[in-house]
Amino acid sequence: MNAVMKTDIDALMRDMGRRARAAARVLALATPEQKSKALHTAAEAIRAAEGAILGANATDLAQARGNGAPDAYLDRLALTPARIAEIAGSVAMVAALPDPVGAVMSEWTRPNGLKLQRVRTPLGVIGVIFESRPNVTADAAALCLKSGNAVILRTGSDALASALAIHAAMVSGLATTGLPADAVQLVPVKDRDAVGAMLSGLDGNIDVIVPRGGKSLVARVQAEARVPVFAHLDGNNHVYVHEKADLAKAERVLLNSKMRRTGVCGAAETLLIDQKIAGQALKPLTTALLGAGCAVRGDAAFQAVDPRVSAATPEDWDTEFLDAVIAAKVVADLDEAIAHIERHGSHHTDAIVTEDPAAAETFLAQVDSAIVLHNASTQFADGGEFGFGAEIGIATGRMHARGPVGVEQLTTFKYRGRGNGTVRP
Amino acid sequence: MNAVMKTDIDALMRDMGRRARAAARVLALATPEQKSKALHTAAEAIRAAEGAILGANATDLAQARGNGAPDAYLDRLALTPARIAEIAGSVAMVAALPDPVGAVMSEWTRPNGLKLQRVRTPLGVIGVIFESRPNVTADAAALCLKSGNAVILRTGSDALASALAIHAAMVSGLATTGLPADAVQLVPVKDRDAVGAMLSGLDGNIDVIVPRGGKSLVARVQAEARVPVFAHLDGNNHVYVHEKADLAKAERVLLNSKMRRTGVCGAAETLLIDQKIAGQALKPLTTALLGAGCAVRGDAAFQAVDPRVSAATPEDWDTEFLDAVIAAKVVADLDEAIAHIERHGSHHTDAIVTEDPAAAETFLAQVDSAIVLHNASTQFADGGEFGFGAEIGIATGRMHARGPVGVEQLTTFKYRGRGNGTVRP
Repeated sequence: MNAVMKTDIDALMRDMGRRARAAARVLALATPEQKSKALHTAAEAIRAAEGAILGANATDLAQARGNGAPDAYLDRLALTPARIAEIAGSVAMVAALPDPVGAVMSEWTRPNGLKLQRVRTPLGVIGVIFESRPNVTADAAALCLKSGNAVILRTGSDALASALAIHAAMVSGLATTGLPADAVQLVPVKDRDAVGAMLSGLDGNIDVIVPRGGKSLVARVQAEARVPVFAHLDGNNHVYVHEKADLAKAERVLLNSKMRRTGVCGAAETLLIDQKIAGQALKPLTTALLGAGCAVRGDAAFQAVDPRVSAATPEDWDTEFLDAVIAAKVVADLDEAIAHIERHGSHHTDAIVTEDPAAAETFLAQVDSAIVLHNASTQFADGGEFGFGAEIGIATGRMHARGPVGVEQLTTFKYRGRGNGTVRP
Repeated sequence: MNAVMKTDIDALMRDMGRRARAAARVLALATPEQKSKALHTAAEAIRAAEGAILGANATDLAQARGNGAPDAYLDRLALTPARIAEIAGSVAMVAALPDPVGAVMSEWTRPNGLKLQRVRTPLGVIGVIFESRPNVTADAAALCLKSGNAVILRTGSDALASALAIHAAMVSGLATTGLPADAVQLVPVKDRDAVGAMLSGLDGNIDVIVPRGGKSLVARVQAEARVPVFAHLDGNNHVYVHEKADLAKAERVLLNSKMRRTGVCGAAETLLIDQKIAGQALKPLTTALLGAGCAVRGDAAFQAVDPRVSAATPEDWDTEFLDAVIAAKVVADLDEAIAHIERHGSHHTDAIVTEDPAAAETFLAQVDSAIVLHNASTQFADGGEFGFGAEIGIATGRMHARGPVGVEQLTTFKYRGRGNGTVRP
């Protein structure tokens, strides 16, 4: 299929867009029961298709191995019966979430008797572009379907056979409830031109793009998309230990923020310590980090407390390490901490550790990040941890969705007004 | 100033963008009292500057008259002491609105004790591009400032002197409360390249563009903007008289929707009458429209009831007349009415007249417009009528803002989390 001409790809993609829009109109009117049943059936179908999915995955793995893909990459691509069960479980979990569509967000009555309601409605058609992680096919489709949106999925090409097998199982779930199969479409070819076509918006038939993957994918999508994008490029997150911090809490929050999992976007990447508590805090926190296996790149003060601390470079303040590495710096006060975060951060997730409520409130008010935390780990940056059930990603943009993007953030709203022959003077 | 080079305009605009971003950071932290006081002072300053504003307006009028502008255009451009008082009154009214920034939209506590809040924050920098209506300078600036956003205003060039005089008065209000003058900037040159620069987003320093004006302005902004746009291109609104309509209510709602003011975006442009009530409804509703001075362009059924009804052309179903003209058609049933609206409408405001609650609910659910109404006039499509106090416009897009865009819709949100050394397992 790789030899398909660009014009053919364009035609294929535009047709997918038209079909998605038509399906979205039907899906927007589906009942909560229909969507829930479709997803439960899809979860069952994924379990039942274990053999076919494993077979397709073996094809993907053999091809990737033949192309010399490294072991870590192959591990992310590989499916097992246990992983397939997890994928099905995630779909069933989304099926069980509250349905956001039709929820009344607010209602009020005007002095003239006009009753107004603001109610949630689906966004329309969502394009999801991801890398070669087979589980994303099911996760993203489930979240979009639950929120009443049609979805066009584009997998990394190394996972195409696996994604097609999972997609086929999911679509069988739609059929059982009379929902249109075109509500969940997967780009069936590997050509990269398909991504460009999606970024163009397919003649207005994609309302928003969600990229799921590494920085180069997100950067390309943000640079080229002609439609809104829900994404974050970086999670350059900070833990600031204020002068009034409880040091035991500081150590707990810091180690969890940095080391619980180093590869997630909520991981802390820079430690800031207030000058006034440096005498007590620098040594134990540095020792704790090093003891946990974290490399520390510090300023002169940090270097002075332990010879294993290396010198931080200017670039380190702007780096999302996604590894057991942290940049560390002493700041004069709360204002300098906030200024550092505003200058170097990525508006994702930042935390202050302090026992001083006023300092905490200032930090929470002034740090302009999607998630700001007081005495809590930055690794709470996650839709599941927020109670959203699941997320399609975390957004650092300011439009529409911000922070964890769950089913509610995949909706828009409209106003319903009810009168009794009510007219305007 | 019209001879300024394009490169100079670019540099000027990019500098305005940088200054707006810096001002937005300060403004986001301003207290409700500061913003309210700044706006009340600005309103006073506008009143006090009546002489200067009238003088500047005389310059604009003389130039426009010299360029052969028609009388209706000159009337919209002209200021009087009464109009200046109205402008000041609008600013004072916005000053008195509830401050949206910092409002807690929702809050909940997780099983691990983490307390989460979703709180409103400003969007950042808003670009407002409008035509030669001097009052928009003050209205738009007041709404942006109230919602904590910096604004870059671009007036139609025929009103530049008037806008500069109003802007100068407003900025003096900011100074009294220590808010940065750069929070409200007005493009000080007439060159059209300034608009192009704003649509490019000024190096990421404009977060959203709001066009205020006619269709050609909005179309250009929607086509060329590289940043989100809150706008509507058309208000091609429908009144559907269902088979179970109360005819007295139908006549009242129809006449108000069409004729209260014909030039507003909430005016009805097409009447749909259910076949099953056509025998009773067609004649009196047609007569009422004609009697009110409205031209009717109807299908064969409408033409048959009155010789003054002209034949509707296919284009009429897609036309926003903004005049005392209505297109009129008999439809077979509710489904055909909804299908007609989805095909020809502009997703702005549509109304059903019926005494059948089930039909009303189907219409309200299935018509995918920003505002859907039951037994109420489409002319309620207005932020003031919704109780929002004021609006910067009406949006028909699906992202972020939809329907009347008031101060709440000019905000975004962030999450605040408060723990007690809380970490993630």
